[in-house]
Amino acid sequence: MKIYGDKRSGNCYKLELLLSILGKTCEWIDVDIMQGDTRTAAFLEKSPNGKIPILEISGDRVLSESNAIMHYLAADSALIPTSQFAFARLLQWQFFEQYSHEPYIAVARYINIYLGLPEDKRQEFESKQAGGYRALAVMEQQLKQTPFLLGDALSLADISLFAYTHVAHEGGFDLSAYPAIRNWLNLIRAYKGFVPMSGEK
Amino acid sequence: MKIYGDKRSGNCYKLELLLSILGKTCEWIDVDIMQGDTRTAAFLEKSPNGKIPILEISGDRVLSESNAIMHYLAADSALIPTSQFAFARLLQWQFFEQYSHEPYIAVARYINIYLGLPEDKRQEFESKQAGGYRALAVMEQQLKQTPFLLGDALSLADISLFAYTHVAHEGGFDLSAYPAIRNWLNLIRAYKGFVPMSGEK
Repeated sequence: MKIYGDKRSGNCYKLELLLSILGKTCEWIDVDIMQGDTRTAAFLEKSPNGKIPILEISGDRVLSESNAIMHYLAADSALIPTSQFAFARLLQWQFFEQYSHEPYIAVARYINIYLGLPEDKRQEFESKQAGGYRALAVMEQQLKQTPFLLGDALSLADISLFAYTHVAHEGGFDLSAYPAIRNWLNLIRAYKGFVPMSGEK
Repeated sequence: MKIYGDKRSGNCYKLELLLSILGKTCEWIDVDIMQGDTRTAAFLEKSPNGKIPILEISGDRVLSESNAIMHYLAADSALIPTSQFAFARLLQWQFFEQYSHEPYIAVARYINIYLGLPEDKRQEFESKQAGGYRALAVMEQQLKQTPFLLGDALSLADISLFAYTHVAHEGGFDLSAYPAIRNWLNLIRAYKGFVPMSGEK
């Protein structure tokens, strides 16, 4: 199995962190989106949507979408709850991450860190702030009640949301008013098998 | 169990269509987002993210995110494949739907149909076209190879993507260059238990 990804991307880091917590390894192929590596014919043949990360299981078995790949890698582990309600809550948090969190917090970080916050992107960067804080408020409300997003135990939901929340400051977000989120970030950093994101400051 | 939703919303229609195909029923509470029904304290207490649909299983057991709710409602049905790879592919299509399809096709439709395409939204409407066509091209590529998104059988992936694809024209998208998608739409319309979207033209 091979992962094609960029370890500075939160979506790719989700897989690196998950594998480390699971005590598994996987061959990693570095892909640079800024150099057009995801727009080549060879990459698009593997994954027509042209996004990273992807997991190549064998020549004709390829998965895209970070949160979907996580379910494949962690199948039958304790990071995926088995009760139907808890499992649906796990998916709820992962869909929340992709729809209500990543498009604000990760995109603001991308504009700031990858693009260097150019003047013609400042308005878009600023337009991401309100939605990002809304997502953080939803997380804070849950994490005031339970140490992890699904309750007392770490699950894929925490890994999915850790990826961009722990670098939210790089998108201009101030977590000082979110003590439950900060506590949760530290619980994950202390978890057995934790690895930091590449190049993290 | 109660669903809070608006049957003109594709995200809500996913649940109506799924339940009908499963031969199940559920109490339905109409919610009007244009009247602020999802911003009330009572609604936000049920679901802090303030989006529809939600499924209220009991007083303190509420699910949000349409695609997550579908897994709860269809648990143990043939619409969810059991092999780990096919299950991850199902999730892949559902995350694709929320990240690469809905934000373009559903949002363009919202601006056109709900808001009446006002002049100050025309630029945003037009900015959604390229991304919407990219998503349709990814679907077309799969549906040229297999009748349904996961292969020979209907799954939750098809229901998730049918919801907004079949009304893509309301967002300004022309499906005439996507014959495999049009064939797939007709396969779903002919499926046992199919119900059309409320108010569909």
